[in-house]
Amino acid sequence: MPLDASARGVYPIAPTPFHPDGRIDVESIDRLTDFYAGCGATGLTVLGVMGEAPKLDHAEGIAVATRFIRRAGRLPVIVGVSAPGFAAMAGLARASMEAGAAGVMIAPPNTLRTDDQIATYYRQAAEAVGSDVPFVIQDYPLNFSVVMNPGVIRRIVQENANCVMLKHEDWPGLEKISALRAFEADGAMRHISILCGNGGLFLDFECERGADGAMTGYAFPDMLVDVVRLSQAGERDAAHDLFDAHLPLLRYEQQPGVGLAIRKYVMARRGLIASDAQRKPVGGMSATARAEVAYLLARLARHDPRAAV
Amino acid sequence: MPLDASARGVYPIAPTPFHPDGRIDVESIDRLTDFYAGCGATGLTVLGVMGEAPKLDHAEGIAVATRFIRRAGRLPVIVGVSAPGFAAMAGLARASMEAGAAGVMIAPPNTLRTDDQIATYYRQAAEAVGSDVPFVIQDYPLNFSVVMNPGVIRRIVQENANCVMLKHEDWPGLEKISALRAFEADGAMRHISILCGNGGLFLDFECERGADGAMTGYAFPDMLVDVVRLSQAGERDAAHDLFDAHLPLLRYEQQPGVGLAIRKYVMARRGLIASDAQRKPVGGMSATARAEVAYLLARLARHDPRAAV
Amino acid sequence: MPLDASARGVYPIAPTPFHPDGRIDVESIDRLTDFYAGCGATGLTVLGVMGEAPKLDHAEGIAVATRFIRRAGRLPVIVGVSAPGFAAMAGLARASMEAGAAGVMIAPPNTLRTDDQIATYYRQAAEAVGSDVPFVIQDYPLNFSVVMNPGVIRRIVQENANCVMLKHEDWPGLEKISALRAFEADGAMRHISILCGNGGLFLDFECERGADGAMTGYAFPDMLVDVVRLSQAGERDAAHDLFDAHLPLLRYEQQPGVGLAIRKYVMARRGLIASDAQRKPVGGMSATARAEVAYLLARLARHDPRAAV
Amino acid sequence: MPLDASARGVYPIAPTPFHPDGRIDVESIDRLTDFYAGCGATGLTVLGVMGEAPKLDHAEGIAVATRFIRRAGRLPVIVGVSAPGFAAMAGLARASMEAGAAGVMIAPPNTLRTDDQIATYYRQAAEAVGSDVPFVIQDYPLNFSVVMNPGVIRRIVQENANCVMLKHEDWPGLEKISALRAFEADGAMRHISILCGNGGLFLDFECERGADGAMTGYAFPDMLVDVVRLSQAGERDAAHDLFDAHLPLLRYEQQPGVGLAIRKYVMARRGLIASDAQRKPVGGMSATARAEVAYLLARLARHDPRAAV
Repeated sequence: MPLDASARGVYPIAPTPFHPDGRIDVESIDRLTDFYAGCGATGLTVLGVMGEAPKLDHAEGIAVATRFIRRAGRLPVIVGVSAPGFAAMAGLARASMEAGAAGVMIAPPNTLRTDDQIATYYRQAAEAVGSDVPFVIQDYPLNFSVVMNPGVIRRIVQENANCVMLKHEDWPGLEKISALRAFEADGAMRHISILCGNGGLFLDFECERGADGAMTGYAFPDMLVDVVRLSQAGERDAAHDLFDAHLPLLRYEQQPGVGLAIRKYVMARRGLIASDAQRKPVGGMSATARAEVAYLLARLARHDPRAAV
Repeated sequence: MPLDASARGVYPIAPTPFHPDGRIDVESIDRLTDFYAGCGATGLTVLGVMGEAPKLDHAEGIAVATRFIRRAGRLPVIVGVSAPGFAAMAGLARASMEAGAAGVMIAPPNTLRTDDQIATYYRQAAEAVGSDVPFVIQDYPLNFSVVMNPGVIRRIVQENANCVMLKHEDWPGLEKISALRAFEADGAMRHISILCGNGGLFLDFECERGADGAMTGYAFPDMLVDVVRLSQAGERDAAHDLFDAHLPLLRYEQQPGVGLAIRKYVMARRGLIASDAQRKPVGGMSATARAEVAYLLARLARHDPRAAV
Repeated sequence: MPLDASARGVYPIAPTPFHPDGRIDVESIDRLTDFYAGCGATGLTVLGVMGEAPKLDHAEGIAVATRFIRRAGRLPVIVGVSAPGFAAMAGLARASMEAGAAGVMIAPPNTLRTDDQIATYYRQAAEAVGSDVPFVIQDYPLNFSVVMNPGVIRRIVQENANCVMLKHEDWPGLEKISALRAFEADGAMRHISILCGNGGLFLDFECERGADGAMTGYAFPDMLVDVVRLSQAGERDAAHDLFDAHLPLLRYEQQPGVGLAIRKYVMARRGLIASDAQRKPVGGMSATARAEVAYLLARLARHDPRAAV
Repeated sequence: MPLDASARGVYPIAPTPFHPDGRIDVESIDRLTDFYAGCGATGLTVLGVMGEAPKLDHAEGIAVATRFIRRAGRLPVIVGVSAPGFAAMAGLARASMEAGAAGVMIAPPNTLRTDDQIATYYRQAAEAVGSDVPFVIQDYPLNFSVVMNPGVIRRIVQENANCVMLKHEDWPGLEKISALRAFEADGAMRHISILCGNGGLFLDFECERGADGAMTGYAFPDMLVDVVRLSQAGERDAAHDLFDAHLPLLRYEQQPGVGLAIRKYVMARRGLIASDAQRKPVGGMSATARAEVAYLLARLARHDPRAAV
């Protein structure tokens, strides 16, 4: 089933599990995928920034995506295909779709500045991946240094029929969600799915502003699922209570560079993957940092027993 | 009393209060200063990034700094003197010190890249403000795009006897504090005061890593004072409990661009300043944002009665 | 006479002459101004990037601008008023216009990214300097990291009646001139003056593309005057012959950082200013560099006797 | 023969020739390679920034490099292997060396800031390509936004025995060459080859400062060969005469973005490649730009008959 603009819920950003010697850990891919499916995720995203995609060579990238896709079964899988050039992007998109991906995600190169440059890039990228391949805009200025105002996103949506989703991770970003939903309400833009990243740091309010859910890699995707469900069910206080209990750890994970190390460390402690190994270059954790995470988990476990690991 | 490397506690970053018509609100300067002194702040910092310093002309900047300094009495005041050139920096530093400032704070221009460029800049700046004027390094890569590794900070400290403090707001930054304190333990760097900014987002752990306190503008400086005191007293859980209760609001305030609007809005609701007016350019709050802050305050008030405003 | 969109010819960017001890050299201001007037410049620009404006304090900036303006007599003077905030910008603009300036020049802060951010900034700046004050857009992406496409420049022109000129120094920039002149031909934008900067590196073709002349600081402004005159007179080959003879030196001067040192060194050798002193921070010349310039001047002197210095 | 630190002369940066329909033009690869060998080039570099490397997928990149290498015969070929991650870099390096490359070239990712970050990156990259694979540092701040001071380059050279060459294209860069050669003279750094890029804009003086030659893509590599030869033979004036005759065109080619279009256009006119086609995204030439190049060629042909095309 191809991805479309009605997608909702939580698409966790999956890390790529490695063995300590650097080989891809395919058993952990399976275990992790099963966990996502079991906890209520409505899809997943692989080979994103947090998936260490650039550390895989071309064949490995396709192998990892394929393994996730096969194991996910009916759960739709989005594959990150951002690349320095359209040839590599098109190749990875084609291989992913042939393997059964639901769509692809495209981040802008960090050299783009003007509105025209951004819109042109997405037109060319949309053509490169193929007009029949649904794609997701990744809007993450903090990481990519590319700033897209709501008007540019509208332009990308209007100019490319295969644009179906926004991975929203601008910061600040709440007003952007409101602006895009206002475009839709005014008939100025067709509806797209908006899933929020940025580590989930504002997920509580993002849902209330009109986001359809989350697409991020926090080590408790099950919490993300619960918060989105509670929020969509109108149980505002309960959603915030759960979110706030996780916020100290979530904020700790949301540190650039070391965030992935923390995330893999917690996932390994939870048994979702076998090892927290990364390929080089590694943003590692000190012993003090591990102790801090242990302290945060212990505090969290008082509210959420899933943290007792 | 000039600032020295033994400074500890909380130096709030003071906003510059304006009347709705753009005039400087001197009565609110007095009220705010009294509040800082009354809640246990050990100093304060004016004309920082959050103080809308660039929106003041030269004479206004000096007038604002002077008003804060006079009202603060024995409380030391640090004045931000960052400027595009050394002539303006030196002029503001001289005027501030003559008015009774305890020291000055200097941020790097966002064109610096290499270690040598950064060290050279601080040598020239330290000479420009005068070798008898204590100064604070502002290390805020997210805002200034200048990345200082611990070795460069050490170099600045060693090359400039009048460098007495680091306003630490790198992100991630916990390991940097540990690295600097390890330099000191090894005798590789003389001791400096480290006060943490970055909105206070990691203050809980920063104190435990060896920071001396906080220098940031969160709308509840009284909470910052309590957390630093509890942490320094070894009451770890109590420090985290209070911090965590504030984290949802603190995180909300820590949004680039709109953060100042939120901060002034909450401070005005608390009665610390008369109006949340800013001079142009303004990063304003929508009605939805105001309602979100009201909701966060109401939730926080269950734990901290000071939020019942 | 206020600056208007009919301005043509050459407005040299004047350096600020200093004595070796750092004091402003007012006699050299006079001498330099007389030289500009005598060699056919149609105006001049002071306190630009090359004018070391940030190294002057507020009072010094006004004093330098005023001295140039008085000496220039009927020659229109544009004053650079770029500043980190609108208060300082407005103050300098007001003081300059009162001293007799013809208009002001405004560069964008290097944090601007989107089309909307750029247009908003210029609207607010145009209001800050005053709607009766003619202003020049400085479009210099290499230095300011702000990229303005032709559409954004049109928007600034259309939204601000007091925008009368573009200091064009994009790189590459030839097609931008053609695009803006095409807007005018199509009635899509009112006419503005376009004077070219960027060290003059493409002046030969810029004139042919529709630029009205030059605004740059090359140490032979008399050559710029001649090239613009020849080009406007249709003497294409003669214009290129003269330009090409100067290109080796002009290219040498067009080195970021050290360019000003070279420029002041050559101007001092020509006797246009008394000393090549700069205020700190200084991008200085090595002995080898001075010898290279001497060699370039000697080679140039075979074609242009003005270089025999 | 592996590349070593004694390399001298001219290593042209080869464009990747395409047919108008986007297929790789292998016949033009052969013709171009023969031209390089015939005009006195001492090596060549493929898959550089100007080689449209990111527009090739993995297999195409290897195929292009292999074709150049086979045709070049005894002429050493350097292959650009810059990639977002070490897996892709290592894969391309391995394949290139197996095909007979003499070495590889590595550019830094544009996120690096501090000296430590740069040195660490090159250590990891040197390990990734293999300690027996000679590599070239590409130092091109204007394009990559990474600033390496001479001390960092020395650190890379000292820490990695397989670093044999610097592709020098800082701007300004003359003093950097002098600083590195002074390190060598003082015994503070082992000797490396320095070949200069940056379009050749300062090649005249770079040779005199101690560079060993050129590595750039100017459409007249035969001129580069002549200038380097004349300069190394001590015929200073003749070297400058030839260089200066080419400078107007060379400067025109040295426009970011459109430079490659101009280069391929001139090379196609010279018959070095069959077509000036590029793959998307294309920075194209207007009809006016083509006429300007024709004018420049005609003027150049008066001094250098090779330009009569």
